[in-house]
Amino acid sequence: MSCPLCAEDGGALVWRGERQRVIRANEAGFPGFYRVVWNAHVAEFSDLSAAERNHCMEAVTRVEQALREHLAPTKVNIAALGNMVPHLHWHVIARFDWDSHFPSPVWAAAQRPSPAQREDGVRERLPQVEDAMRQSLGLLVLP
Amino acid sequence: MSCPLCAEDGGALVWRGERQRVIRANEAGFPGFYRVVWNAHVAEFSDLSAAERNHCMEAVTRVEQALREHLAPTKVNIAALGNMVPHLHWHVIARFDWDSHFPSPVWAAAQRPSPAQREDGVRERLPQVEDAMRQSLGLLVLP
Repeated sequence: MSCPLCAEDGGALVWRGERQRVIRANEAGFPGFYRVVWNAHVAEFSDLSAAERNHCMEAVTRVEQALREHLAPTKVNIAALGNMVPHLHWHVIARFDWDSHFPSPVWAAAQRPSPAQREDGVRERLPQVEDAMRQSLGLLVLP
Repeated sequence: MSCPLCAEDGGALVWRGERQRVIRANEAGFPGFYRVVWNAHVAEFSDLSAAERNHCMEAVTRVEQALREHLAPTKVNIAALGNMVPHLHWHVIARFDWDSHFPSPVWAAAQRPSPAQREDGVRERLPQVEDAMRQSLGLLVLP
């Protein structure tokens, strides 16, 4: 009954706050894929208080804003699923019209091969993306 | 360039507020599938103001709470994707360990045939679910 998001960060740690953290997911084919993980073990978004929910979505928003400003994705996808790991975490994913699955969700079947060069182009910009995230998330006020 | 969520409700209307509405998605295999649609045409969650985001997620939360209270799903899945229809809408989906895709996302490949009888059992409870949604969403305070 051990929870992987209680045991470990769950990815490359970008930022850690008192209530939540942001990790780079390192999912093949999606270089601009981050997760906002609530530190405490809760399963559903509605298990949080209203103040905690606002705090959590403010982090999701700041991650999205950093992705938009530095990667100019075609669309950002946000999702809290947790069917496999029922510990609240938000997927925040920069999607591009050239990515292997667009316009399908990342969990659906691929539409085309992964364009390695374009992915590398995104990957090169991740240091700036993550600097922007840390700067913005560092200004979050605790609920 | 016409947007289907500007032109129409986008499903069976459950509730309409000044800023947003809730529709039953009527997606095959997922009877407890609702959408919170922002009425104005905005593409990304971060296009909303902080007050609007909180208002929007409060509606998502109340939809989730009604699903949890009346359907006791294994998990609730929440997602704002919009790759096909870039008009902000949140999928709020009651997932069951017996549903055709669990634990995969609803957008992934099916894991098993749809159990029609269990789906009908969920469908029978939707009037109570939607009464609860309307009651709770009716108390939302505008931002």
